[in-house]
Amino acid sequence: MKRIAVLTSGGDAPGMNAAIRAIVRKGIYEGFEVYGINYGYAGLVAGDIRRLSAEDVGDIVGRGGTCLYSARYPEFANREGQEKGIEQLKKFGIEGLVVIGGDGSYQGAVALTKLGFPTVGVPGTIDNDIPGTDYTIGFDTAINTVLESIDRLRDTASSHMRTFIVEVMGRNAGDIALWTGIGTGAEQIIIPEHGFHLDEIGEAIKEGRKNGKKHTIIVLAEGVMTGAELKEELCQFDPESDTRVTVLGHVQRGGAPTARDRVLASRFGAKAIDLLKEDIGGVCVGIRNGEIIYNDIVDTLENGKHVPNLDLYTLNKEISF
Amino acid sequence: MKRIAVLTSGGDAPGMNAAIRAIVRKGIYEGFEVYGINYGYAGLVAGDIRRLSAEDVGDIVGRGGTCLYSARYPEFANREGQEKGIEQLKKFGIEGLVVIGGDGSYQGAVALTKLGFPTVGVPGTIDNDIPGTDYTIGFDTAINTVLESIDRLRDTASSHMRTFIVEVMGRNAGDIALWTGIGTGAEQIIIPEHGFHLDEIGEAIKEGRKNGKKHTIIVLAEGVMTGAELKEELCQFDPESDTRVTVLGHVQRGGAPTARDRVLASRFGAKAIDLLKEDIGGVCVGIRNGEIIYNDIVDTLENGKHVPNLDLYTLNKEISF
Amino acid sequence: MKRIAVLTSGGDAPGMNAAIRAIVRKGIYEGFEVYGINYGYAGLVAGDIRRLSAEDVGDIVGRGGTCLYSARYPEFANREGQEKGIEQLKKFGIEGLVVIGGDGSYQGAVALTKLGFPTVGVPGTIDNDIPGTDYTIGFDTAINTVLESIDRLRDTASSHMRTFIVEVMGRNAGDIALWTGIGTGAEQIIIPEHGFHLDEIGEAIKEGRKNGKKHTIIVLAEGVMTGAELKEELCQFDPESDTRVTVLGHVQRGGAPTARDRVLASRFGAKAIDLLKEDIGGVCVGIRNGEIIYNDIVDTLENGKHVPNLDLYTLNKEISF
Amino acid sequence: MKRIAVLTSGGDAPGMNAAIRAIVRKGIYEGFEVYGINYGYAGLVAGDIRRLSAEDVGDIVGRGGTCLYSARYPEFANREGQEKGIEQLKKFGIEGLVVIGGDGSYQGAVALTKLGFPTVGVPGTIDNDIPGTDYTIGFDTAINTVLESIDRLRDTASSHMRTFIVEVMGRNAGDIALWTGIGTGAEQIIIPEHGFHLDEIGEAIKEGRKNGKKHTIIVLAEGVMTGAELKEELCQFDPESDTRVTVLGHVQRGGAPTARDRVLASRFGAKAIDLLKEDIGGVCVGIRNGEIIYNDIVDTLENGKHVPNLDLYTLNKEISF
Repeated sequence: MKRIAVLTSGGDAPGMNAAIRAIVRKGIYEGFEVYGINYGYAGLVAGDIRRLSAEDVGDIVGRGGTCLYSARYPEFANREGQEKGIEQLKKFGIEGLVVIGGDGSYQGAVALTKLGFPTVGVPGTIDNDIPGTDYTIGFDTAINTVLESIDRLRDTASSHMRTFIVEVMGRNAGDIALWTGIGTGAEQIIIPEHGFHLDEIGEAIKEGRKNGKKHTIIVLAEGVMTGAELKEELCQFDPESDTRVTVLGHVQRGGAPTARDRVLASRFGAKAIDLLKEDIGGVCVGIRNGEIIYNDIVDTLENGKHVPNLDLYTLNKEISF
Repeated sequence: MKRIAVLTSGGDAPGMNAAIRAIVRKGIYEGFEVYGINYGYAGLVAGDIRRLSAEDVGDIVGRGGTCLYSARYPEFANREGQEKGIEQLKKFGIEGLVVIGGDGSYQGAVALTKLGFPTVGVPGTIDNDIPGTDYTIGFDTAINTVLESIDRLRDTASSHMRTFIVEVMGRNAGDIALWTGIGTGAEQIIIPEHGFHLDEIGEAIKEGRKNGKKHTIIVLAEGVMTGAELKEELCQFDPESDTRVTVLGHVQRGGAPTARDRVLASRFGAKAIDLLKEDIGGVCVGIRNGEIIYNDIVDTLENGKHVPNLDLYTLNKEISF
Repeated sequence: MKRIAVLTSGGDAPGMNAAIRAIVRKGIYEGFEVYGINYGYAGLVAGDIRRLSAEDVGDIVGRGGTCLYSARYPEFANREGQEKGIEQLKKFGIEGLVVIGGDGSYQGAVALTKLGFPTVGVPGTIDNDIPGTDYTIGFDTAINTVLESIDRLRDTASSHMRTFIVEVMGRNAGDIALWTGIGTGAEQIIIPEHGFHLDEIGEAIKEGRKNGKKHTIIVLAEGVMTGAELKEELCQFDPESDTRVTVLGHVQRGGAPTARDRVLASRFGAKAIDLLKEDIGGVCVGIRNGEIIYNDIVDTLENGKHVPNLDLYTLNKEISF
Repeated sequence: MKRIAVLTSGGDAPGMNAAIRAIVRKGIYEGFEVYGINYGYAGLVAGDIRRLSAEDVGDIVGRGGTCLYSARYPEFANREGQEKGIEQLKKFGIEGLVVIGGDGSYQGAVALTKLGFPTVGVPGTIDNDIPGTDYTIGFDTAINTVLESIDRLRDTASSHMRTFIVEVMGRNAGDIALWTGIGTGAEQIIIPEHGFHLDEIGEAIKEGRKNGKKHTIIVLAEGVMTGAELKEELCQFDPESDTRVTVLGHVQRGGAPTARDRVLASRFGAKAIDLLKEDIGGVCVGIRNGEIIYNDIVDTLENGKHVPNLDLYTLNKEISF
């Protein structure tokens, strides 16, 4: 293998640039020529491909977003798009590919793998919902962004004795809600992976107010329901409460990556190069119990399942009263 | 005058604590005994009042929110509530009052003034919409909070070639939108104080996309319409565009105050004490062209009007293409 | 065991408050009465001890420093001080103790353990140099603080084509330097755990300048030498270079803790309570490969040794050219 | 005038990029062709000059440093260098120049003005020490950076009952020290523009400790003496005190500019274009009492003098006990 390429796909995540930098630099260090593909699979099919030098990725390690741009491109689910993509890669003499993204992006990587093109998946999404890894690139930054926002809300919540519902991202995963709920001392955390009883929550809020609690903060994972829906349901239990909803939205996707995300992304990127150097494709990298690992990507997607650490859920119940 | 008191009222704003600290410390320095009233006018009427020492306001200069808590209390519009309030003040031997808050809070200060109780208003609100001052406590922090959020959105907007509508606070004032629009290089700023044509904005977005602009950011003051409404209207001009709405919400009210807000609040607080020391009540402090000033509070509320610097609006048109 | 106590000792670290909160809340949840000891071992000997309620630790989860204050107290190395400490604990009816701090603090915990008083150590220090755990409370916050500072330096370094030596904390450990070096794309990382050749570094800087590198950043662990010393030595190889030294200093110890540190501290604190509930003392908690663990504290101090992940050192060599 | 150019010179300051953006965009808007000169006067003499498009300055409004790079170039004090510079400008057909920088940079602008080349100075330096303006580009960002650092130090100072001396930048001006001293509630502010008595400061620290003050923070402007020197002198009055020195250093120069700095820089840049459009050179822009103004640059440098607002000094004495 002499030439390899890298693309980012799906929702962007802070740290993707650090991964790109590591892939390009480590790739060059190992003797590869490295190409960047703009706009994910869409750019792959369109041939929006260019050679990257070590200098091209200078000073990007701390930038949010992705310098290769990203796009959702459902058309890549079709065989035709996939073959067109491989054609483009061959035209440039590229023999290996690294795909940074979420599970939608992994699907494309699986397709290329099945068509015989060596592809390595790198988990990049703030949602932390990819099987085969304990943490994804972007998750640590996202939880710190959410944390800061809730810290701000707490100022105003304390000043007014209010209840705040904070709707956070995570798609079907509750990781962001769990970590930020504990991190901000939220009274309630509501996630898809654990049941909850609205009446208990309503009771707890009333109780807290009676006991002089200055505020109640409820962190709600978007996968359960919207903040507006939750507010409406809660109002039936507690019509007096002054409840506000904040939807943090796309702010959670941006920002300079944290130290963890930069280091994790750099390690993932370097690992992807190590694998391609040994002609290993059809895999995805990850971190498991602190160790950088890799797994068969087809198997991971088919049989793997990300489960958040539910001990954190129990812990919060015990220390947030 | 020997004893004075301070309260915060209405929406909280970062820097209110710095103002409280200055009032308490400078008050003590000038020989006053200083009392704090919790929960604004509600606490005033209820007699929720306590003596404050210099130490009580130690280490609060950098904290968001207000350590005296705040509350909206529409009942204070009635003569009965006002008289009850004055009764409470007299019970504690308090002869002068400083009220930190927005224009709702000023209404209460006017009422007390008309009933003969020496009251000084200090403008505290993130909206920057109080007559009689160029800047209010909290505005500088709020625009920096919004700036950071839009900087984050830009990462993800650039990565995906998206249009982002960012709805910011400000009630009927466009100051937050104006300053943050220029500060983030937003393509469009929409404020209540200036007309706009939806079709021009729609055209500009299309044009920008054609010219390769990576993203379009529209900063929308909440006083014009909601972000969701704007999105719907824009979609008619440009159904293809990938437009997202972010409502920054109460996050804008919190956070550690900026240097400007801490210094401004300290100066306002000290000025209020200077005024009470000279037995001057029925006024509100402000900053005008860099100078700390004060005005008759009745006149200010009746005849004053805050107007944002519309040169900034023109400036943005000239440099955001 | 009915009554337990907690103290913080040695250098403070962001997240200590989150640990205190978890110990108090979880302690109460499990039926303990929980006491706080001010000023570490000094306060223990002096009997500066008070009961803590769940409310007392409200709103501290996000605050830097330690609400129990800390102090260095070398006198606690003497048997006399230790016995006086136990006497005080008994006076209050306290039967178990949690000590949050670095290895100096662990020494005190070992002493109490040897005298038969059930003590649990919780690793809190920004230096990440405690045996028996992969991460300490405060490390994650510290590396993010350093990261932000170096990101700022890079702005000015790039603008002027300068070499910056950044001296970071860590005592005899290179963890802070390693993580932040990778996180900021530093050209050079110098740590106590790995040899280095000044002439190679000097050559690399010259080479980089010749190749148009806009700046060189050297992250230096304080355990190796001071920044001023390194500058002097480098000047002999490269008298032309415009080299600046920045000593980040105590800024690294402060600030609101990151999400990781808050969650880690909460988990450590809860684990300490679990152990005391089972009458287990003479141990220290930690995190190993993502799992919360505990070890014999005497054995850990005598035979344990923290070693940073030197793969990161190698990685940096491969991607920082 | 058809073609104009812009350069940044001297120490870089956050917001310079926002000024460059405004100059380029507003310049193009007004019909100019705009050129950028790299590395200040050094690049001018060397002819390191390139045309800039509106797109070239996209997405820089929020970046620290200067995308045109900066350099100190004492050789420009000589007539020879100046004539060489004008020659280069003529070679490119450039008829007007905007210089962003501190007073060293203004000297060059004066020289070009005296040789008949229309030059406009824009005040850019974190030190806020330029005559002819109340505020310079970068000052607001720098004080917020310092503020955040002192807020962090306070965490650790409070935890340990320490005295911290914080040496801040400002060259011969005390503005940074004044604003951040008030903003952080520092017990002492020492600036070049106001006398001070070491024994009074020493006494105050002792007194504070006796009264239970958790910490003492002294903000020291670098123009007075170094932090190490102050520590030594203070130790003679108070040998017991645990005093630490932090030199914030170049970190103060970097970082994403604040909202104020971005808006101020944009306004300054636009004003410079307005002036060149009217063929006005030999001037420098500024802000005075909230209004954007301009002055004769020769007169400003010869007769102007920046004086900080010493009311702030008095204020701090009254509220920091």
